[in-house]
Amino acid sequence: MPFNKKKKKYFAALLIIGDEILSGRTQDTNTNFLANWLNEHGIQVREVRVIPDLRHEIMKSINYLRKKYDYLFTTGGIGPTHDDITAESVAKAFKVKYEYNKEAYKILKDHYKNSYFNAARKKMAKMPKGAGLILNPSSSAPGFFIKNVYVLPGVPIILKSMMHYLEQLIVGGQKKLSENIKIDFPESKVSKVFSNLQKKFKDLSLGSYPFFKSGKVGVSLVISGYSSKRIFDCKKQLLLKLKKIKPH
Amino acid sequence: MPFNKKKKKYFAALLIIGDEILSGRTQDTNTNFLANWLNEHGIQVREVRVIPDLRHEIMKSINYLRKKYDYLFTTGGIGPTHDDITAESVAKAFKVKYEYNKEAYKILKDHYKNSYFNAARKKMAKMPKGAGLILNPSSSAPGFFIKNVYVLPGVPIILKSMMHYLEQLIVGGQKKLSENIKIDFPESKVSKVFSNLQKKFKDLSLGSYPFFKSGKVGVSLVISGYSSKRIFDCKKQLLLKLKKIKPH
Repeated sequence: MPFNKKKKKYFAALLIIGDEILSGRTQDTNTNFLANWLNEHGIQVREVRVIPDLRHEIMKSINYLRKKYDYLFTTGGIGPTHDDITAESVAKAFKVKYEYNKEAYKILKDHYKNSYFNAARKKMAKMPKGAGLILNPSSSAPGFFIKNVYVLPGVPIILKSMMHYLEQLIVGGQKKLSENIKIDFPESKVSKVFSNLQKKFKDLSLGSYPFFKSGKVGVSLVISGYSSKRIFDCKKQLLLKLKKIKPH
Repeated sequence: MPFNKKKKKYFAALLIIGDEILSGRTQDTNTNFLANWLNEHGIQVREVRVIPDLRHEIMKSINYLRKKYDYLFTTGGIGPTHDDITAESVAKAFKVKYEYNKEAYKILKDHYKNSYFNAARKKMAKMPKGAGLILNPSSSAPGFFIKNVYVLPGVPIILKSMMHYLEQLIVGGQKKLSENIKIDFPESKVSKVFSNLQKKFKDLSLGSYPFFKSGKVGVSLVISGYSSKRIFDCKKQLLLKLKKIKPH
């Protein structure tokens, strides 16, 4: 990353664009991948929206989310076919021209030098005026960014291959840290202790997530926040209190 | 289902409530499961939002989505701990009391008859006044519905076990049908043919989804819509045109 204001907190939204997610045809995994990757880079995902391939829905969501959060990352809809309307809709959202990006055009022309560089392939070089590129080492068609909106492909393997380039374009802040304690008795046995600790440690987030394994009930207690010292103190107190609870 | 107006189309939104999805700790699979299940029951998911465990975010999203769509299904935040605030937030969104549901209280009391029925467990019987139950055969704590909002748990195995009961509470309409043609040449080779077909079949949705398998590029062409005859005609024309395209 070019620059890291350690003390600032950064928040992001993800906009997952694609009928195939909404129809249930495709299991989205980009949300989980990006949430983890961004967290590692000091950016917290605070909201995700999945919307269909419809111009007005894309425009409306982009304009709402880009103003609400430090960053907006979109996935999907930047391929060569008629249903790939993300780039065009981003241009409309920003009220700028949708035109060939010279650099992207050159990259694609070089990539397709041994086969036909047809209209569909050329379309992948069309972007909002003023956009910067996010390079794509796997299938060459670049993503792009304009202001705080970063436009990425939907195919997970291609998206992942572009993270090295994305990393150089974004600025992250404080990383959210977390500790996870797994215990094998039910959530409702620890909820009082856990809730009292939350009141004591207001700067931390305490979450509990039940799980089921080989017919047994258990719970993951997750303490998260920005201060490792506070998380350590909270965990210590939690462990002391857990010792006093009878598991059954 | 109790009643099925075959000719009507029904649309739904999903609201996935949980910090654990946004932090990347948990991969959400409820969206994909519910999208498929609802589609089978004649309800199309048109929007999904993932939001944190924050009262005002939950309330705002519920009031927006329930008015925009025929149905809203929420997952997450109905357990026994302090971070489970969905039921309370739904009551606030509807401006009704948040109180013990007598039927839910009885179910939970019976379920915990051999262990302590503590405050945390009792909390799972608290719901918006006037809510109806969605029974839970696996861990007993029921979900509920109020008007067109259906509140479900976040743990996938529990959610799935409740579908039999949910099915009896919802009314579905026309089912969206689809055909999938997989071809092993790049998306950009078929985009013109596919786009022209879309213009001809305006009542259908034509989507193309690239895939990568054993180093080869291919594309899934998906034709979807409400008329099996129209889908059949479109597929026939597509197959004829695909025959004329050189794969390389």
